[in-house]
Amino acid sequence: MAVILINMWEGRTEDQKRKIVKAVTDAMVESAGVNPEGLTIIIHDIPKDSWARAGILASDR
Amino acid sequence: MAVILINMWEGRTEDQKRKIVKAVTDAMVESAGVNPEGLTIIIHDIPKDSWARAGILASDR
Amino acid sequence: MAVILINMWEGRTEDQKRKIVKAVTDAMVESAGVNPEGLTIIIHDIPKDSWARAGILASDR
Amino acid sequence: MAVILINMWEGRTEDQKRKIVKAVTDAMVESAGVNPEGLTIIIHDIPKDSWARAGILASDR
Amino acid sequence: MAVILINMWEGRTEDQKRKIVKAVTDAMVESAGVNPEGLTIIIHDIPKDSWARAGILASDR
Amino acid sequence: MAVILINMWEGRTEDQKRKIVKAVTDAMVESAGVNPEGLTIIIHDIPKDSWARAGILASDR
Repeated sequence: MAVILINMWEGRTEDQKRKIVKAVTDAMVESAGVNPEGLTIIIHDIPKDSWARAGILASDR
Repeated sequence: MAVILINMWEGRTEDQKRKIVKAVTDAMVESAGVNPEGLTIIIHDIPKDSWARAGILASDR
Repeated sequence: MAVILINMWEGRTEDQKRKIVKAVTDAMVESAGVNPEGLTIIIHDIPKDSWARAGILASDR
Repeated sequence: MAVILINMWEGRTEDQKRKIVKAVTDAMVESAGVNPEGLTIIIHDIPKDSWARAGILASDR
Repeated sequence: MAVILINMWEGRTEDQKRKIVKAVTDAMVESAGVNPEGLTIIIHDIPKDSWARAGILASDR
Repeated sequence: MAVILINMWEGRTEDQKRKIVKAVTDAMVESAGVNPEGLTIIIHDIPKDSWARAGILASDR
């Protein structure tokens, strides 16, 4: 079993999320041998003013 | 001390959350012996199009 | 569905964890109405020298 | 490299977040010796009715 | 940019992890369009006595 | 109140962690105005074979 938390910038459409969870699930099934029924994916949509690298907000880049 | 992060589908009312944090805190105090003052609970409300099992969004089920 | 991440000090026995996950699951089923089959709990055991409050490690208190 | 997840009460302005990520990054660079380019900070803004201590919602205090 | 936290049962070898992070990265690049340089994956290896579904430890199933 | 989860490569000594939690706490108090008593920091020490960027394990770089 596996639980995957994806933190990414907000703004993806439902259709994009549909493709992401399908692709990541397939990748985990093939590479890790997990049962897809036992795989949960949760997406945390993060605004760009809540994400920083090197001390600089993504909204300022 | 303990910090509990609850990821669940969005849509609960404040009153439901009031009951959830009370019930989970009581459960932790009784089963784990933690001091309630040292127990923090954070709820992450997740939209159904950001939650997937078996590669399928909860919003598509 | 819900995924609960419990961060707590390491040192609990398997039997204590057995009681904790049972108690928290029961609390979530009763207070939040989640289906127990859809509830995953993950415990992160944290050493006291990796936990701090007010800037002081738990191992120094 | 380091990834820091900050859970805090919602309500900070973008300018406050700008100061927070700068200050935390500087603190990590000085105390942990991480390269700032390898340091990501993600802020999770939590409503007060999704945060509890001692079984009581922050919105009820 | 994205940060992915994978919680899964402990016991994978380094070679299995090498395949997992490659496969998940490829899946994210293709489905989400993220730049691989901006994608960090962190694996949390969880013992079976720290993982529960339906209130039952994985070590008891 | 705030809860900070720091994921970083394992290998820091207790004294380094002591300095890190002190520095990050001071940074949060000054930049975010949080009460230090309400600030919890949890460090997740991650082995290099459980950390990847651009699909490559840190243990392979």
